Amino acid sequence: MNIVDILLAKRGGEALNEEQINFFIESYTAGTVTDEQASALLMAIYFQGLNTSELATWTKAMIDSGERLDLSSLSAPTVDKHSTGGVGDKVSLVLAPLVAACGAAVPQLSGRGLGHTGGTLDKLESISGFNVNLTASEIVSQLDNIGVVICAATENLAPADKKLYALRDVTATVESIPLISSSIMSKKIAEGTESLVLDVKVGSGAFMKTLDLATELAETMVAIGKEHSVNTAAMLTNMDLPLGNTAGNALEVEETLECLAGGGPSDLREITLALAQEMLELAGVSADPANVLDSGKAMDSWRKMILAQSGDPDAPLPTTDIVEVMTAGDFGCSSSAPYLANLDAYALGIAAWRLGAGRSKKSEPVSFPAGIRWLAKPGDEMTHKMTAEQPLLELYTEDEKLLPLAKADLFGDSDAEAHPPIVFAKNPTAGAELIHKKIK
Amino acid sequence: MNIVDILLAKRGGEALNEEQINFFIESYTAGTVTDEQASALLMAIYFQGLNTSELATWTKAMIDSGERLDLSSLSAPTVDKHSTGGVGDKVSLVLAPLVAACGAAVPQLSGRGLGHTGGTLDKLESISGFNVNLTASEIVSQLDNIGVVICAATENLAPADKKLYALRDVTATVESIPLISSSIMSKKIAEGTESLVLDVKVGSGAFMKTLDLATELAETMVAIGKEHSVNTAAMLTNMDLPLGNTAGNALEVEETLECLAGGGPSDLREITLALAQEMLELAGVSADPANVLDSGKAMDSWRKMILAQSGDPDAPLPTTDIVEVMTAGDFGCSSSAPYLANLDAYALGIAAWRLGAGRSKKSEPVSFPAGIRWLAKPGDEMTHKMTAEQPLLELYTEDEKLLPLAKADLFGDSDAEAHPPIVFAKNPTAGAELIHKKIK
Repeated sequence: MNIVDILLAKRGGEALNEEQINFFIESYTAGTVTDEQASALLMAIYFQGLNTSELATWTKAMIDSGERLDLSSLSAPTVDKHSTGGVGDKVSLVLAPLVAACGAAVPQLSGRGLGHTGGTLDKLESISGFNVNLTASEIVSQLDNIGVVICAATENLAPADKKLYALRDVTATVESIPLISSSIMSKKIAEGTESLVLDVKVGSGAFMKTLDLATELAETMVAIGKEHSVNTAAMLTNMDLPLGNTAGNALEVEETLECLAGGGPSDLREITLALAQEMLELAGVSADPANVLDSGKAMDSWRKMILAQSGDPDAPLPTTDIVEVMTAGDFGCSSSAPYLANLDAYALGIAAWRLGAGRSKKSEPVSFPAGIRWLAKPGDEMTHKMTAEQPLLELYTEDEKLLPLAKADLFGDSDAEAHPPIVFAKNPTAGAELIHKKIK
Repeated sequence: MNIVDILLAKRGGEALNEEQINFFIESYTAGTVTDEQASALLMAIYFQGLNTSELATWTKAMIDSGERLDLSSLSAPTVDKHSTGGVGDKVSLVLAPLVAACGAAVPQLSGRGLGHTGGTLDKLESISGFNVNLTASEIVSQLDNIGVVICAATENLAPADKKLYALRDVTATVESIPLISSSIMSKKIAEGTESLVLDVKVGSGAFMKTLDLATELAETMVAIGKEHSVNTAAMLTNMDLPLGNTAGNALEVEETLECLAGGGPSDLREITLALAQEMLELAGVSADPANVLDSGKAMDSWRKMILAQSGDPDAPLPTTDIVEVMTAGDFGCSSSAPYLANLDAYALGIAAWRLGAGRSKKSEPVSFPAGIRWLAKPGDEMTHKMTAEQPLLELYTEDEKLLPLAKADLFGDSDAEAHPPIVFAKNPTAGAELIHKKIK
């Protein structure tokens, strides 16, 4: 078995057999296949793909590169959600305690933000004292006690994926459906959940820009899940507009608390309840998540989770004094174009990242108070016109030198060919359809 | 300027601009772009190619990564030959002193063997004391004194190519026409020659298996040469059969001496004279290379070159006692199939390599006496039949444990789908056409 022969085979469009795939994943994890050979293979896979059988073997090899969590001692059925990542996507923070409050156990092993998308762990760390690093036995014990945990994947969970993920990021081999789906599913299957709902984001702020691509990704992941006996379903949801009214770490926790209190932005509540319904169905738990949310029981689960993970649920969230308000007029609002017609998720995500909320490298810290709040959204505007003087955006940062770059992104200055990301129009715009379809 | 953006652009089929290509070559040479990023780009180039303008920029950037030899002080016109590599291809050893004896200066910077193809420097090093490592000023001074030098490229000649070449070898990104042509031409242009003839090998023992691919490679290289004001022409020559009657280091030097003495295998003489004619024409030197070869003047140049590079032209060549003779009958020769119909260059090259004549890694040493001598060739057989008892091959090695692997390659055992590499037939086979075409 020789890595160059494997590379030649995949480069030439051949399907790799089990022995070849296992050799690659094992040798790369062990370090005898080098990063440059692995990246060449990833690029060849970008062009030549992996067929269903290769993908099953590849995913299994990634799972087998580490340990699988054993959740069999839990009495409650286990169910998790994974989102492919978007802007303002704080759904997990509400959803995990909500589904736990409904009676399932939610073992949510999450990630950090990279690029324009935020990360669940970064958001939770804006809560004073919150600890995301738990051992396998701490995870099981917390699930047993309070039914919910949101933490980082343990060291030995799909280590092959950790190494490949870091490599893909610097070698432009991220956007490959077999590589994305095997990466996500190897982690989620190794996590040990019985059921899994995938929130596949579609649109400008998502990694999948079109419904076709998102459908292909969702179908691929659902098939992998079923092959490994995980009840898996997917929902395709809109990410042309950002979710809720904020992007940023502490800002999104603030919005989470509003939603857990029964309020918050309507789109966030709608998607959260739809995903909760789906998770409970897969888990075979009969409960009405809207009632549970409004009853305050989800908030109780949230507080228990924060406390169990050494956080202080009552500590004030980090804030900053550097807040710049941009008006509707800054983006062309006038009496002849008073309706907000577009608020591009990607541009807002990039701008929040520039303000300090995100990172460009895995090792960089994030700013907790940094981010953006938008005070209107297309569709809200069906009911009222805006004036040029009205505030539209609040930009939060800890370093005012970051403001000009963020503003350039919001005006679309950095990409001459792009349509402006924030647009006002003469006539009102209908709100976007939030949930496109389900795949089971 | 960001390497990931460059990767995304090439991955998506975009042409890279001058700034992007210069950034990549400079940063990779300097080490700020990593091997894994470079190999991902090479694999993307394998799939997406480089257009004419990108290729010109890429080659120039590789030349500019180091120094260009200055041969302007020489009074004789300079001309070199490059072969894309084959089995038994000892042409350079005869050709360089021959063309020098005709009145041109031949600055031949050569390489080592890798895989099934032999390397000119390895062959020369089987001559006692021969030194292939000369400085730039030693090269110029030797050319001035005796008109010919065959040595290794100096350290600072196209260093970007050195790094990329080593990387391509381990990442299955060798077989790309833009990468092959820019690699060869950057070295040859940096070498400072005024004229250049390319011997592009076609067939089983060559890197280009078909005439179409070889033509594309030849045309690409000729265009690059002309762009850089090097008089460039190409000859496409047959490499389905090996050249001459031996593959191996000392064995090929022995054959070189026969040819320099006016004898030797007829195919070796024919190709050498055709290439010499072409080189002299490009260099504007009027001479008859056949006369010069037969006069012994080429042998004189050879001896001067060996002496100038610290070698002993009269020292006996390294030999080995371990010689295994294989008969025609071993390969199916019988009274009903007495004519040798195929003697596959690739299989012989691989077998010679297995016997110790070649290397699989750049750092490995080679065995000087190891190799193969074939005692018949298809086409020779037009005149006589063989019998099963007649010897067909002599296998030379310094380690008898290597014999079984080499034999397996000669029988074609290692590749079930391949046709047997050595075949006997009922009727005689015509000799192969040696020179397919010229490209100017």
